[in-house]
Amino acid sequence: MQVVPLGGLGEIGKNMTAVRQESGMILVDAGMSFPDEETPGIDVVLPDFTYLREHADELKGIALTHGHEDHVGALPYVLREFNVPVYGTKMTLGLVRSKLQEFGIKKGDLREIKAGDRQNLAGFNLEFIEVNHSIPGAVAIAIRTNAGLIVFSGDYKVDFTPIEGAPMDLGRLAALGNEGVLAYFGDSTNSERPGYIPTERIVGDTFNEVFENATGRIIVASFASHIHRVTQVVEAAKKHDRLIGVTGRSMIRNVQIARDLGYLDLPEAMLVDQRDIHRVPDADIAILTTGSQGEPLAALSRIANGTHRTIDVGPEDTVVIAAHPIPGNERGVSRTINNLMKRGADVHYSPLEAVHVSGHAAQEEQKLVLSLLKPEYLVPVHGEFRMLRHHANTAASMGIPEENIFILENGGRVEFKNGQARRLENVSAGMFLVDGGGLAESSSGVMRERQQLSEDGMFIVVARINAQSGELLGPPDVISRGFVDPQASNGLVDESMAVVTRTLERTARQRITDWGELKTAIRKDLSGFLSGKTRKRPIILPLIVEV
Amino acid sequence: MQVVPLGGLGEIGKNMTAVRQESGMILVDAGMSFPDEETPGIDVVLPDFTYLREHADELKGIALTHGHEDHVGALPYVLREFNVPVYGTKMTLGLVRSKLQEFGIKKGDLREIKAGDRQNLAGFNLEFIEVNHSIPGAVAIAIRTNAGLIVFSGDYKVDFTPIEGAPMDLGRLAALGNEGVLAYFGDSTNSERPGYIPTERIVGDTFNEVFENATGRIIVASFASHIHRVTQVVEAAKKHDRLIGVTGRSMIRNVQIARDLGYLDLPEAMLVDQRDIHRVPDADIAILTTGSQGEPLAALSRIANGTHRTIDVGPEDTVVIAAHPIPGNERGVSRTINNLMKRGADVHYSPLEAVHVSGHAAQEEQKLVLSLLKPEYLVPVHGEFRMLRHHANTAASMGIPEENIFILENGGRVEFKNGQARRLENVSAGMFLVDGGGLAESSSGVMRERQQLSEDGMFIVVARINAQSGELLGPPDVISRGFVDPQASNGLVDESMAVVTRTLERTARQRITDWGELKTAIRKDLSGFLSGKTRKRPIILPLIVEV
Repeated sequence: MQVVPLGGLGEIGKNMTAVRQESGMILVDAGMSFPDEETPGIDVVLPDFTYLREHADELKGIALTHGHEDHVGALPYVLREFNVPVYGTKMTLGLVRSKLQEFGIKKGDLREIKAGDRQNLAGFNLEFIEVNHSIPGAVAIAIRTNAGLIVFSGDYKVDFTPIEGAPMDLGRLAALGNEGVLAYFGDSTNSERPGYIPTERIVGDTFNEVFENATGRIIVASFASHIHRVTQVVEAAKKHDRLIGVTGRSMIRNVQIARDLGYLDLPEAMLVDQRDIHRVPDADIAILTTGSQGEPLAALSRIANGTHRTIDVGPEDTVVIAAHPIPGNERGVSRTINNLMKRGADVHYSPLEAVHVSGHAAQEEQKLVLSLLKPEYLVPVHGEFRMLRHHANTAASMGIPEENIFILENGGRVEFKNGQARRLENVSAGMFLVDGGGLAESSSGVMRERQQLSEDGMFIVVARINAQSGELLGPPDVISRGFVDPQASNGLVDESMAVVTRTLERTARQRITDWGELKTAIRKDLSGFLSGKTRKRPIILPLIVEV
Repeated sequence: MQVVPLGGLGEIGKNMTAVRQESGMILVDAGMSFPDEETPGIDVVLPDFTYLREHADELKGIALTHGHEDHVGALPYVLREFNVPVYGTKMTLGLVRSKLQEFGIKKGDLREIKAGDRQNLAGFNLEFIEVNHSIPGAVAIAIRTNAGLIVFSGDYKVDFTPIEGAPMDLGRLAALGNEGVLAYFGDSTNSERPGYIPTERIVGDTFNEVFENATGRIIVASFASHIHRVTQVVEAAKKHDRLIGVTGRSMIRNVQIARDLGYLDLPEAMLVDQRDIHRVPDADIAILTTGSQGEPLAALSRIANGTHRTIDVGPEDTVVIAAHPIPGNERGVSRTINNLMKRGADVHYSPLEAVHVSGHAAQEEQKLVLSLLKPEYLVPVHGEFRMLRHHANTAASMGIPEENIFILENGGRVEFKNGQARRLENVSAGMFLVDGGGLAESSSGVMRERQQLSEDGMFIVVARINAQSGELLGPPDVISRGFVDPQASNGLVDESMAVVTRTLERTARQRITDWGELKTAIRKDLSGFLSGKTRKRPIILPLIVEV
């Protein structure tokens, strides 16, 4: 039996792991991640599908731990290529169904399971175990394989007083531990953090305090999938006699899904249509919104900069940003806070106030799970190397031998046989980039071009040339985009034209008429000239027109 | 008398404030800031010089609070245009002198002052007051104007046990308060943070612990100007019998300056040349380095990714990143930590360990200063709006009336007359961008182009046209850079050529020969086609060649 994590290692996001034995292959999760400064202009980043394609015949199904994008976001792309059943809890499948509709995928084979269920699939036996997380319906998955029992934690925390569902099923983990766990694939996101993550309920206490003191509108931004937090806003609104407005596409959709599936008790009578929010007195409404990450087009950002179609905010109003910025989003969130404060709003945000708790286990919770599962082997998953390393350190401190802890990269492959694990050669596991709707399998060339364009711009030369003699016909044209400001670069255009003219006079004397050689000569001379003058290296594109 | 902050409001960075009365104008600080996602490819961001240019004759000098880039970084550019004396402490001028040399400015008129000094300048009387900060030689500046006494805090914290120099001169602040302070321009960087900032000495305690336990090399990264922290590394090295190596251009330079000026007690015998570091046994050396912000080319980043010329790091070694990431640098710092850990190093970093304390006053320190100065008016400076707002709230909680607190933008102008303050119309205060060595005064067009290029790339069409008829001669050429991957975009090139051909056939039938009209038509049709196909909007550049 082999386990091959294809994403989620050395990074936060695009979690997807293949589990494979003679009887077939299954995937645990199929997540996406978001572009960063190394993938400018990209819509979505997916795990590499190469390994799946190579073993397409063996793939028998996908088991989902929960409905977050970094665990299900790649699903539409996977299902386009591989028509296999998908197993998940009601909430998870509710989100997946809506996602597949968006992609125009009508007949996904979605099979609902619930915590406590067991399910045979491709010769494996899957057991779904209740965990707590920042979304309803999260499960761990224990898989009985022909090499032994392995456990995927999914994303989890231990909340003894969860908003919905039961506390994490520690009893079941203990039973698995006693049965004997060969390998544990554990969530490492918060493994740098000592102690325990507080219960989600402390955020509700803060909400109640805010609702107690607010006189105008209350606007609460959170992740749209964080139905527990949404529930706590709704409960505070009930207690303080406020109606609920909802704005932001994903918040509207997820609130609807959660209500339909019975995860959110929000009576129709409490719900105000987005278009009617301005008709409700400010003191009688609380508004749920997207935009907790400062995304430029999200509803809260538009409220903050005054471009939301129906909702404005002023000095009497209160805004709660009930989330913590994901690394990379700090500036966007800060911009939102600044803009809201400029409008006079009273803004509550993390870490100044207890308006957010994490959904990922900290070190003591990780120890609790390790002590119950007593795994032979640990593979820390979900996280950058530093997080995987800390998880490994925590396990080592509890007596798991270092040689039984595998810190892998994406594509790292572990074989389990006769109770032993060993690493095999890595499989291909880069990223697939979704760009302009298409799936680009390897666009590093385009990415490099975009990065260079964004730093140094582009410099285009059009030279008309006599096809026979290679002689220049008239002065060359020079056009730049994203290069230095023409006003700031005195005479740069004229001098560049002169440089190109000299180059082509020289090549004409040398009787060079090959386009490739001419272009190379122009690029070389112009690049030297421009970087000398400006220390910049624009993309230089010589266009030669034969006349 | 007027005070005009030209930078540092609504932002962290490029602090520069003009103080102006009939007798002349002076600047307090002349700082720069660094580019962000809205200024791609830019070298340095400066305050807008327009106001200075308009009042060039009145400008009589510049007084510096301390030597950080966000307070002195614009100085070379200012001095190129305005030949005025510069006042600062020994450390500040030491850093400025080295900076001016780099810029080839030989004869800056630098005039040393020290805390406690008073100095007449342009009809103002300046008093320099000791404060604590994350660099030696930081001062507040009290200015006696013809409208009254105003106080600039500069960057400060209150450290009763500073590593060097005296604790902040609270006695002098109290005396000024009793004399009567008209307006206080106070550092707001940490105004969201409750309580006090701990003394710098707690970082020294952590260093000692690290040195106590380390067996291999110790590498400590910090801001190169943070000579107090450097001092604590050197002291720990002395205590634990390690020599000191220094790497990273600015660290080497600043350590040299601090030693020359007597701010750093690092005997020659302790100092190992960068090239000789590998000759010293690992247990006998500690290395000071730049790169605490994860800057890709800094020494620590190169050590972390294995490209440093002389220093490598391995499983026995210890690295301390003695700084906190500045917002926007989180990913870079994280990458450095990951890379170091992959090499097996034991990495100590904030906030997991006490390897950093801030140099900016928290709320209780701000209250302390406000209670001593008892200013009539407060203008919170140095910070984004949220920070200015919190500083204002703190002051309001102490009884300063809201109408006496001015939260300004860059270019905001306050006039003080007869003990009263009022706001005048804003002056021009955008940013000046240094791009490719040149000073671009307003490059928002180029910035927008670079952003668009980095997201969607560029699409170039070359069409050869009969000058008389406007008819297309042969198929048009289509070239893209940074646009979607050609492999992923089946037939997009061919289809684009067809679109352009159809457009030009139409315009030929309509007998359109005007280049402008032809280009507009190509742009319109192609843009519609491409965004329909790819949802991307590349810059489209039609080039028409008449034959």
